[in-house]
Amino acid sequence: MTQQLQLNSKGKLKHFLSIEGLSQNLLTEILNTAESFAGTTGQPVKKVPLLRGKTIVNLFFENSTRTRTTFELAATRLSADVLNINIATSATSKGESLLDTIRNLEAMHVDMFVVRHSLSGAAHFIAQQTAPHISVINAGDGQHAHPTQAMLDMFTIRQHKKDFTHLKVAIIGDILHSRVARSQIQALNTLGAAEVRVIAPKTLLPVAVESLGVTAFHSMEEGLHDIDVIIMLRLQKERMNSALLPSESEFFKCFGLTPGKLKLAKPDAIVMHPGPINRGVEIDSSVADGPQSVILQQVSNGIAIRMAIMSMAMQQTGSPA
Amino acid sequence: MTQQLQLNSKGKLKHFLSIEGLSQNLLTEILNTAESFAGTTGQPVKKVPLLRGKTIVNLFFENSTRTRTTFELAATRLSADVLNINIATSATSKGESLLDTIRNLEAMHVDMFVVRHSLSGAAHFIAQQTAPHISVINAGDGQHAHPTQAMLDMFTIRQHKKDFTHLKVAIIGDILHSRVARSQIQALNTLGAAEVRVIAPKTLLPVAVESLGVTAFHSMEEGLHDIDVIIMLRLQKERMNSALLPSESEFFKCFGLTPGKLKLAKPDAIVMHPGPINRGVEIDSSVADGPQSVILQQVSNGIAIRMAIMSMAMQQTGSPA
Amino acid sequence: MTQQLQLNSKGKLKHFLSIEGLSQNLLTEILNTAESFAGTTGQPVKKVPLLRGKTIVNLFFENSTRTRTTFELAATRLSADVLNINIATSATSKGESLLDTIRNLEAMHVDMFVVRHSLSGAAHFIAQQTAPHISVINAGDGQHAHPTQAMLDMFTIRQHKKDFTHLKVAIIGDILHSRVARSQIQALNTLGAAEVRVIAPKTLLPVAVESLGVTAFHSMEEGLHDIDVIIMLRLQKERMNSALLPSESEFFKCFGLTPGKLKLAKPDAIVMHPGPINRGVEIDSSVADGPQSVILQQVSNGIAIRMAIMSMAMQQTGSPA
Repeated sequence: MTQQLQLNSKGKLKHFLSIEGLSQNLLTEILNTAESFAGTTGQPVKKVPLLRGKTIVNLFFENSTRTRTTFELAATRLSADVLNINIATSATSKGESLLDTIRNLEAMHVDMFVVRHSLSGAAHFIAQQTAPHISVINAGDGQHAHPTQAMLDMFTIRQHKKDFTHLKVAIIGDILHSRVARSQIQALNTLGAAEVRVIAPKTLLPVAVESLGVTAFHSMEEGLHDIDVIIMLRLQKERMNSALLPSESEFFKCFGLTPGKLKLAKPDAIVMHPGPINRGVEIDSSVADGPQSVILQQVSNGIAIRMAIMSMAMQQTGSPA
Repeated sequence: MTQQLQLNSKGKLKHFLSIEGLSQNLLTEILNTAESFAGTTGQPVKKVPLLRGKTIVNLFFENSTRTRTTFELAATRLSADVLNINIATSATSKGESLLDTIRNLEAMHVDMFVVRHSLSGAAHFIAQQTAPHISVINAGDGQHAHPTQAMLDMFTIRQHKKDFTHLKVAIIGDILHSRVARSQIQALNTLGAAEVRVIAPKTLLPVAVESLGVTAFHSMEEGLHDIDVIIMLRLQKERMNSALLPSESEFFKCFGLTPGKLKLAKPDAIVMHPGPINRGVEIDSSVADGPQSVILQQVSNGIAIRMAIMSMAMQQTGSPA
Repeated sequence: MTQQLQLNSKGKLKHFLSIEGLSQNLLTEILNTAESFAGTTGQPVKKVPLLRGKTIVNLFFENSTRTRTTFELAATRLSADVLNINIATSATSKGESLLDTIRNLEAMHVDMFVVRHSLSGAAHFIAQQTAPHISVINAGDGQHAHPTQAMLDMFTIRQHKKDFTHLKVAIIGDILHSRVARSQIQALNTLGAAEVRVIAPKTLLPVAVESLGVTAFHSMEEGLHDIDVIIMLRLQKERMNSALLPSESEFFKCFGLTPGKLKLAKPDAIVMHPGPINRGVEIDSSVADGPQSVILQQVSNGIAIRMAIMSMAMQQTGSPA
């Protein structure tokens, strides 16, 4: 159902809600399109007129300056007009329902909703309900998915490792509560990664995590062996029940990425993190700032990936959904 | 005096503060100009370069995401630059007077103030005090006027009923506290509507309401008979003294618009509401979403009407006021 | 060190952090560039395409609607894209360090930071740490400097008095806590003003204030004699320890600028104030609004000065720092 919702009748991207249900070809098309925007590594993305006259609404029900900023910049570089609406602080205070808010914005003839919501499924719900001419991009919904983050991670991995088929990737930390991890696992498997591992204490792994297509490890020593790509997750203090972990320092001791632990992986392994990082909680500063870290490249790539996804989805508006 | 303030020496619109004092010709010119922006019903409004290089300030002393959004979109589609200033949260915290705030923004060579204020007369005051090159649009002042809302309502009525001269219109709900109702009544009478009725409990009607040019009814059964256009008002819970009404459910029972009550009007009557709607308080969901409802068309028309008013007022800046 | 930081290897402006260390030639170049934007006095600044495609970030760690507005307008008139980030309310709430915030914005390929911070030295710190392609403008840091304010003041003085070399200027009020006063004193001395006086009670003067290049007075009667330019400072109630002053009315009686005190200066003296003014606290309304006041011209000139500084600094990006 997600697939049908995300693609139009010609199989082109209309909404971008989840990695689930998207083909390897489509993910590769997104990466290639982003590459056309990104240009040479380190060069700024040029402004292009692709979405001139279009209105993109950042519809944030959950506050996130960082994510809002990357979408706003990506939209601006596509020459779209951007409308920021922070619902957390304003709209529903008059008691209007989510659906009425959506109906009203539709009636104003906006072209795209970029949705951030603390409830899983919110972006899907909006995509199901919204008018045919509108595209919906999921900018993070509850513990469900954060697919643009996963795609910028894939873009960064491909920049460094070229091909996914021989890659062994480890995702480390609070898998249980992480929408980022769910989307990364789906993307890596769809793109044909050789092995996807998760490394976490048992209390921070979902039940039957192997069914997601991963191998579970409970120690860095075992899990990092022979790894090409290390993805650290942010320890979401605000989301964690304190009973799940003894303490931050205990977590760092076991699962924090230190120079010593980094040596357990392949010598050319890259280190990734979706940010914002908690220095000394899940990652040591010398690793975060070290030569194997590609954390800031991820941020740069986030602009190009979001430009790619927004422009691809907008080219399908008007087509039968 | 309002007339002199709103028109320049050639009788053209300079400020848009109130329907009061504007001629039928001018209101019709606004509707015709909006029609040129709106194009075919349902089609998005195209971006036009009419106000390129102009700076429009959304000066909101009262928070309203919805109204701010419609003005921002309208300004953007006229290619103006928009500056959002939310005074409620920021400016007067340093103790600056309203007049000093205005003088400072004038000195920055902005071109238009869109003013929302909880005090009646605020937009008039600013228009009286501001520099000759600046236009002022009233986006709602206290319980006084909300003239752009009234004009988008007139536009919507004309779309459906073509001519005003045979129309019987009923406005229902809290007339006493409604700036929207005041502006609607003035607009309908100026445009020559055959009959304007208000339907409300006595506690929610102004003293001597007939002097506004309306007939007052206290029951839906009597008031809706033979009506072409039904305008429901939002029950402004935050503005109402609880002593004026027994309860929300009691209000809905007497004055809420249900499918049964809707049948009291003409079969082709249209149902309007300025939004945001309180489902089950003043209007039943099946009516709000039903075939006679034009509520979302009102929202769409709000963009075209505001584009019309902003562009007409800006063409007069520089002319002697 | 400030000089090296602010200028590139060819001696051109790269960051604008402080008046200190900048030459008379450079300050004059800024004034001349601003004049090219300002055009005739009273005429609005035209929009120019100088910074089209550039992204300017208003990075405000301290709330200031007025200052943010002037920078946003200046950037918009240079055709840049503007991103407003209010860190006070958002970013560091997730515990990210200032440096990580900067690194992330850099990675998004923004071109300029306009920094407002309650800590002295914040803009310098960011300029030291940021990537070579980024320019930093100080929009006020603690009690240290507010150099764009000082330059718009110099621009306004030059408009009225043509030449600095014969000018006697008095700065009046809370010198101790004023970043504006520090920057004004440096600018006036660099531009060769004949005499710079400060007039304040001893409790509101820094220790060894004469070392800044000023003469200190403790009474308006002595200090205003023969003065060409009077600069009143805002009494920063929120920054002052109440022990420093007996009361507002006592301060006004001694140091407030009344029509009577104004007569102590030269007949053609101009009256300036950085705003927002406290009427009846440091300045009488009849003086603030009187014929010798140039307070609103300062506001107008703020747009042109900030356009000048931003465009000069951006022309140097890419050059070796």
